[in-house]
Amino acid sequence: MTLSAQPGKGVIGVAEAMAAATAEIDAVLQTLLPEPSGPERRLAEAMRYAVLAPGKRFRPVLALSTAELFSVPRRAALRVAVAVEFAHTYSLVHDDLPCMDDDDMRRGQPSLHKQYDEATAVLAGDALLPLAFEVMAHPETHADAEVRLELVRALAEAAGPRGMVGGQMIDLVVEHKPADIGTITRMQQLKTGALISFACEAGAVLGKAPASARQALKAYARDLGLAFQIVDDLLDVEGTEAATGKKVGKDATLGKATFVALLGPERARTQATMLADQAVAHLDAFGERGAFLRRLARFVVQRSH
Amino acid sequence: MTLSAQPGKGVIGVAEAMAAATAEIDAVLQTLLPEPSGPERRLAEAMRYAVLAPGKRFRPVLALSTAELFSVPRRAALRVAVAVEFAHTYSLVHDDLPCMDDDDMRRGQPSLHKQYDEATAVLAGDALLPLAFEVMAHPETHADAEVRLELVRALAEAAGPRGMVGGQMIDLVVEHKPADIGTITRMQQLKTGALISFACEAGAVLGKAPASARQALKAYARDLGLAFQIVDDLLDVEGTEAATGKKVGKDATLGKATFVALLGPERARTQATMLADQAVAHLDAFGERGAFLRRLARFVVQRSH
Repeated sequence: MTLSAQPGKGVIGVAEAMAAATAEIDAVLQTLLPEPSGPERRLAEAMRYAVLAPGKRFRPVLALSTAELFSVPRRAALRVAVAVEFAHTYSLVHDDLPCMDDDDMRRGQPSLHKQYDEATAVLAGDALLPLAFEVMAHPETHADAEVRLELVRALAEAAGPRGMVGGQMIDLVVEHKPADIGTITRMQQLKTGALISFACEAGAVLGKAPASARQALKAYARDLGLAFQIVDDLLDVEGTEAATGKKVGKDATLGKATFVALLGPERARTQATMLADQAVAHLDAFGERGAFLRRLARFVVQRSH
Repeated sequence: MTLSAQPGKGVIGVAEAMAAATAEIDAVLQTLLPEPSGPERRLAEAMRYAVLAPGKRFRPVLALSTAELFSVPRRAALRVAVAVEFAHTYSLVHDDLPCMDDDDMRRGQPSLHKQYDEATAVLAGDALLPLAFEVMAHPETHADAEVRLELVRALAEAAGPRGMVGGQMIDLVVEHKPADIGTITRMQQLKTGALISFACEAGAVLGKAPASARQALKAYARDLGLAFQIVDDLLDVEGTEAATGKKVGKDATLGKATFVALLGPERARTQATMLADQAVAHLDAFGERGAFLRRLARFVVQRSH
């Protein structure tokens, strides 16, 4: 069943729809991850440990649900969704390293470098990113070579110095330093926003959607991504390790520049709700087809993990 | 001047030809690396530090010289050569990390994590790999989308778990353990061989060469890559830091499984020479056009850095 066909109004049913999509996504993740074999089997084991842990699958769900807007074949959408999850997991594994955010828990289990070791964590991350490109460049992803290249280019940009990696660099640079809202916004737009934006745009690319639809989804992704991040920061302050699957209270300990540190929890929550409203407003042109993406935006600001 | 047009016979003139090609390559590296700007400027600075250090540029020279066999426009060949160097430099930066080979010197200067810090080194590596894909996927690299996709797929495979990263994993796993010649060969074929093979194949992909030519170049690359690696291992035993630009004697200290450790220096050198002969034999079909690649194979086993 497609995400948009899931019954329920408002945020009701979003969790159920995401759970159903997650099962589909996880099945494809399984098949596209390398099987452990040979003297390097530890690498494939580590990749599987990190990727197959119970993640939210928020980014792949975005890719699937934007692809539904343009009636993209499920098989193609799932491949891109999985590529996005590979890229996302790689970034989590590297961000958790002792030299970065030094996180011991991730997705409810010891982070990769705790379970294995630092070298294996660096390498597993290093192996997941090219795998994402390999999946997207493969003919099964789309018959049209230009479409596949467009995906490769967009992911390369989202994953590179003007995307995720640039954002993580800002995060490290501003640690223990006063940062203004502009810097934090730029950091988050690169660190988490770029890949969320790619996930939303990917559906439009696969569907060869007109530029206006693509722009609308990018605008939706920009606002949704910031709302998602603000809630992440709130959960670090207000959430529990049991619910989030990772240690909480880390941002304050590390002196991290976050929206919550700057605005306080209350204004931060108001800001997240406003951003979700803005995100929803960008979907007008999609009419009833955009219903799931609207509900997803509401769900994001109400989530507890 | 093309590499093959460089005067001289045997290995005479190879160093000069490589120096001339290096100047061309470095000019394009400069233009395709991001300029430092914004709060994340440290990232671009670190990328430039690692890439623009005086490397041998062996892999990009291979891409350029195989492209010459098929009269590929220089501009296209240079873009792919530069993408290969980005991928290679990323692997050096990550391999040098304290949790990996813990190397303090690289290319005659402090390795990236010594000059900056570990987090910046992880991120600079992380940023260089997507940049390689971005350069290859760009329309300026080739008019034919299928050619660009072929390059993306081949690099993804060379850089991924069945390539460089898999090889580095084996390297770590067999440290301080007895390893047989089969394991060491597989390790090196993945760790250094895969990217050398990609560099050689890239010229044929760009030139839409027939499968037979592509196979011949892959076979050349396989033998050349092993010969190159054996000489690298020999230089770690017999070379100087001044000549190699990195610390020597590290393999023995780390208990690394190398050809030299297993065969002894003399047999290792004989093996390297034999592999270079084999590499040269794969070039018969190219006639006079293959002259430079033949001289390069001889040069590789005679090099002192």
